Amino acid sequence: MQKSYFRFSYSNFYFSDSKGLSVEQTYKAAGVDIKAGEETVKKIKGFAKSTFNQNVLSDLGLFGGFFELQKDAYAEPVLVSSVDGVGTKLKVAIAMNFHATIGQDLVNHCVNDIAVCGAKPLFFLDYLAFGKLNPEIASSIVEGFSTACKQNGCALIGGETAEMPGVYQENDYDMSGTIVGVVEKKEIINGKNICKDDVLIGFQSNGLHTNGYSLARKVLAQFPFDKKFDDLALPLGNELLRVHKSYLNLISHLKNEAEIHGFSHITGGGIVGNTKRIIPENLSLKIDWNAWEVPNLFKLIQKSGSISDEEMRAAFNIGIGLIAVVAKDQVDKVINTAKTLGEKAILLGEII
Amino acid sequence: MQKSYFRFSYSNFYFSDSKGLSVEQTYKAAGVDIKAGEETVKKIKGFAKSTFNQNVLSDLGLFGGFFELQKDAYAEPVLVSSVDGVGTKLKVAIAMNFHATIGQDLVNHCVNDIAVCGAKPLFFLDYLAFGKLNPEIASSIVEGFSTACKQNGCALIGGETAEMPGVYQENDYDMSGTIVGVVEKKEIINGKNICKDDVLIGFQSNGLHTNGYSLARKVLAQFPFDKKFDDLALPLGNELLRVHKSYLNLISHLKNEAEIHGFSHITGGGIVGNTKRIIPENLSLKIDWNAWEVPNLFKLIQKSGSISDEEMRAAFNIGIGLIAVVAKDQVDKVINTAKTLGEKAILLGEII
Repeated sequence: MQKSYFRFSYSNFYFSDSKGLSVEQTYKAAGVDIKAGEETVKKIKGFAKSTFNQNVLSDLGLFGGFFELQKDAYAEPVLVSSVDGVGTKLKVAIAMNFHATIGQDLVNHCVNDIAVCGAKPLFFLDYLAFGKLNPEIASSIVEGFSTACKQNGCALIGGETAEMPGVYQENDYDMSGTIVGVVEKKEIINGKNICKDDVLIGFQSNGLHTNGYSLARKVLAQFPFDKKFDDLALPLGNELLRVHKSYLNLISHLKNEAEIHGFSHITGGGIVGNTKRIIPENLSLKIDWNAWEVPNLFKLIQKSGSISDEEMRAAFNIGIGLIAVVAKDQVDKVINTAKTLGEKAILLGEII
Repeated sequence: MQKSYFRFSYSNFYFSDSKGLSVEQTYKAAGVDIKAGEETVKKIKGFAKSTFNQNVLSDLGLFGGFFELQKDAYAEPVLVSSVDGVGTKLKVAIAMNFHATIGQDLVNHCVNDIAVCGAKPLFFLDYLAFGKLNPEIASSIVEGFSTACKQNGCALIGGETAEMPGVYQENDYDMSGTIVGVVEKKEIINGKNICKDDVLIGFQSNGLHTNGYSLARKVLAQFPFDKKFDDLALPLGNELLRVHKSYLNLISHLKNEAEIHGFSHITGGGIVGNTKRIIPENLSLKIDWNAWEVPNLFKLIQKSGSISDEEMRAAFNIGIGLIAVVAKDQVDKVINTAKTLGEKAILLGEII
C-alpha cells in the first residue's frame, strides 16, 4: 500500500496508486482492458506534451520541469506566481461524473490571478489526489489542464498525482494548481495609481466561476442536477459547471490600449472584497448595484436559500468576473477595446 | 457555507473557512480567545515574512506573489519547478497531533527534487485544505514551511488555505507544495554524461522521508505510536515523523568540488526506480545491497509485515536518501567533500 511514483517519459509527471503501481500497471492489475489503459496513458502524455513550447526543455526533465526564461526579452523580469484550488466545485463535477472541464477552471482561475497583476503566464503545475486513482478520470482532468494551458499560452510542465485512500473517499479527489508568469517590473499593475474619482468598469462572468460552491450546493440540494429551469439555458448541473472564464486576452488588450490603474479578479469575497485589495488605504469603493442585471443562476441561488443581498455579494461574483479601475478619460478606450473583443463593459461604480 | 478568501497583508496568502470568514473572524465567531487568535494570525504572517529576501517584492503582492529574477546573474537562466505532496505521512502527523514538521517535509522534498537537477530554490507556494479549518494547526504547518524555506534560502511567497467539509473529514487535511528554482542552462545536471563503470555513491536518509507511509502505517498499526523499541532512539510515532532531510547543502558542495554526472533523490520507487530515471537507456545499475546497514526502523517495518526484500527496496529508501553518480576518478573528491560536511559517503554500486 505504499505511495510510490512512476514517471512518464515527459517532464516531471508522476502517477501512482496506493499499491505503488504506475497507471499502466494499475490497468494490468485490474486486468480489464489493457489496450484501453495504454491508450489512456498515451493520451495523458500527449495532453501535457501538446502544451510545450520552445522554452520547455522537455528532454532534460527528470525530477523537475525545465523552463528556459528568455532573459533578453525583459529589462527587469519579475516572476509572478499564484496557487489555487477549485473549492467544492469538485463535488459538482464528481456528482455529475463529468471531469473534462474542472481542470480548465483551475488553470483559468490561476491565469486570471496573475494576469490582473500584468503578468503573462509561463507554466503551470498541478497536484491531483484521489481516494482511489481512476486513470480515466485523471486523464480527463489532465486534458482539461492542457486545453486551458494551450488557450492561455502556458506550458503544463509538471504534475503530481497521488492516491491517498485514508484521506479521501474512494470517489473523491482534490486538486491544486500553481502558475508562474512573468511581468516587466515597470509594467506591474498593482493599484498604486488608483485615485479618487477613478471609474470601476466591470466585465461579465459566465457563471459562479470557482467560488461560492459550498453555499450554492447547500441551497440547491433540493433540486436534481438534471433539472431544467425555464430561465436557465442549461440543466442546473451544467450551469454550475460552466468553465471559469479566462480574462487573459481581454486584460492583454486593455492594458495595451488604455492606462489601467488596477484590475480585480472577482473570486471569493465578491466585488468589494477583491477590489478593496488593490485600492490605496485612504480610498473606498462606491458600487452601483443596479448597474447590471444579476444573472438568473444567482437569483435562483438567492431565492432558494433566502440569502441576503449582503451575503450574496460577499459569496459570489453575481455576474461580474473582472473589474478594471481607470481614470475617467480612459473609460471610452476601455469600452471600445472591450467591444472589439465582444465583451460588454459595465460602468459599475467609482473610487471615493 | 461559501468558500471565500480573505487576505493577509503579506503577498498572496489567503485563509478562509467554509462560512467565508477570515481566520480572525473564525476566532471571533467561535468566541473563545480572540487575543490568542489574533496572536496566531500575527504569527502566521510573521512566518511567511521571515522567509522574504530582497527579491520578494512584498509590498506589491496582490493577487500573485512577486519575485524579481536577478537576470544579470545568469547567462541562460532555466527555471526548474516541481510539485509534490507528503502522501499519508500526514496521517501520522494527524494521529500524533503534531504538525510542526510536516511542512518541513514538504519543502525539503521539493527542494531535493530540483537540487538534484542542479537548481537552487527561489520560492515556494503551498496549498492546504482542511475538513475544518483549524487556525492553530494551519499556523503550525505554515511555521514548518517557513522554517524549511529559511534553511534552504527559499522564499515562501504564496499559499492557499481552504476549508472543504465535504471532501475531507473534519480533522483531516492535505497539502501540496510547488517550488521554483533556477539553474544556469550549462550547469543542468541530468545524467546525460553517465557512462559505464561510473560509481554510485549513496548518502544516508534519516528515516522514511515522505514515502512508503501507506505500507508502513498498515504493517505498524499493531503498535501504539508511543511505543518505545529498544533499537529505535525515539518512540515509534516520532521515528515516523523524522523530517525529510534536505540535501541542498551537500549537493551544492559536491557539484562545486567534483564532476557529478547525476544525482538521484530517493523517493517512492526506491533506489533503483529513482536512479534509473537519470541513466541513459542502454545502461543499467548494479547495486551492492550489502554495502550499508539498513536502519532499524526499516527492519521493524519489514519484519512486522513480512515484506519481501524486493518490495522493501521499491517502497522505501531503506537508508539511502540521495545518490551521486560519478566517474571513478571523482570518488575520492566526493568522499572527502562529504566528510567535511559530516556526511558519510557509501559506495553502493556501479553503472553497467
